Amino acid sequence: MTNFAPFAHMLADSSGAVIRSYFRTPMPVDYKTDESPVTIADREAESAIRQLIEEIYPDHGIIGEEFPSIREDAEYCWIIDPIDGTKSFMIGRPIFGTLIALMRNKTPILGIIDQPIAGERWCGGDGVQATLNGAPISSRQCPQISSAMLCTTARELFNESDGRAYDRVKERVKYYNYGGDCYNYGLVASGTVDIVIEAGLKAHDFCALAPVIIAAGGVCTDWEGKAIDFYSDGRMLACGDKELHAEVLKLL
Amino acid sequence: MTNFAPFAHMLADSSGAVIRSYFRTPMPVDYKTDESPVTIADREAESAIRQLIEEIYPDHGIIGEEFPSIREDAEYCWIIDPIDGTKSFMIGRPIFGTLIALMRNKTPILGIIDQPIAGERWCGGDGVQATLNGAPISSRQCPQISSAMLCTTARELFNESDGRAYDRVKERVKYYNYGGDCYNYGLVASGTVDIVIEAGLKAHDFCALAPVIIAAGGVCTDWEGKAIDFYSDGRMLACGDKELHAEVLKLL
Repeated sequence: MTNFAPFAHMLADSSGAVIRSYFRTPMPVDYKTDESPVTIADREAESAIRQLIEEIYPDHGIIGEEFPSIREDAEYCWIIDPIDGTKSFMIGRPIFGTLIALMRNKTPILGIIDQPIAGERWCGGDGVQATLNGAPISSRQCPQISSAMLCTTARELFNESDGRAYDRVKERVKYYNYGGDCYNYGLVASGTVDIVIEAGLKAHDFCALAPVIIAAGGVCTDWEGKAIDFYSDGRMLACGDKELHAEVLKLL
Repeated sequence: MTNFAPFAHMLADSSGAVIRSYFRTPMPVDYKTDESPVTIADREAESAIRQLIEEIYPDHGIIGEEFPSIREDAEYCWIIDPIDGTKSFMIGRPIFGTLIALMRNKTPILGIIDQPIAGERWCGGDGVQATLNGAPISSRQCPQISSAMLCTTARELFNESDGRAYDRVKERVKYYNYGGDCYNYGLVASGTVDIVIEAGLKAHDFCALAPVIIAAGGVCTDWEGKAIDFYSDGRMLACGDKELHAEVLKLL
């Protein structure tokens, strides 16, 4: 099978250059129908990625957060969130990320989480060693929930019953921490966070996260324990340790 | 009056070198009586700072988070939190910070917020231009609360009545965001965040924050609108815009 990782890195290089040029500069912000913000940096970063895919792999599909899908039923389809954590980007915190995934027949096989300001890039996939800036990484062993570090972006992003499920885990961990968006998943892959729980994620978010975590030796599923694919319901559970994943799954 | 800013930068250089050497490495964690974590990096970073003060200004006082106070009633007294946001440090997020303040007769006159991984250092004080990495900065005009970006580290850090006060502000802003610790105050000073509201801060946290924000043209007080000094109650309100500060103060 073709190794698409070098091309995925090219895509992240191109989006990163755009995003760095806008970071901490004043820029107009539009609001989508769900009130989420979008900036010119989101759109231009996604355009840069789309242009490269069209040039190099014109038969591949493209699904992105900011523009309509193209050839979405192609065998190989790229799925992109140019800035995951737009609010972090807008306030100037270097913990947002560009998410780039390659799906084969709607199953993600390769993912990149790129933080272009801090210069951090997690990558991993089927047959692709998990790396942070090119160096091999692995998730952390932490079988005991009472020793675990839990991250989620915001408690308010859960609905009522999902929030109660989250609280059941939160009450048992050693520490919890807020903020972070996709960056938290990178930290699971490189072994400094043990659990990330979120809900309401879109396919352009979660498709890039799962391959990185799995390649690093962790587990990334929905709240039922099912593998992540394009059709997952957006409730994510990522753990660095398999035993821990099983325990958290019971609590959710 | 002596300009102590160059010496404060020396202090931050010394703590930053220690912290970088431990970032994302496995290290033992101790727990203080309030269950907050402390690592060898916290202790060694504070020791590095203390040693320099003892060498260069042996008549100055030192108050730090990790060791007993020395000459705390001296006219000039340094007050230090070696790692504010220890949990962010432990999980490998580059948005914790080293806080270094100089007080004169218990009033903070100089502050540094140093992020040694991202390489970002905010500085400012009485007669000391607010800067980020040496470049002049100023806070952002945002008189309308409905346009404002609000940050706080975690909703859970408020007690019940303080939490309700926070919610009154949160309901009126354009956006809110969690996580960040001292980094949020740096972003107010450099103009990408409009409001930070927190409670329960200690003197070694808030003494460094207020001089930076005030020097950048913002306002930083307690929830009654009183200027920050060593005896403040730990409830902080930092705003980039004076009109916005007055409006938020009414809601709190």
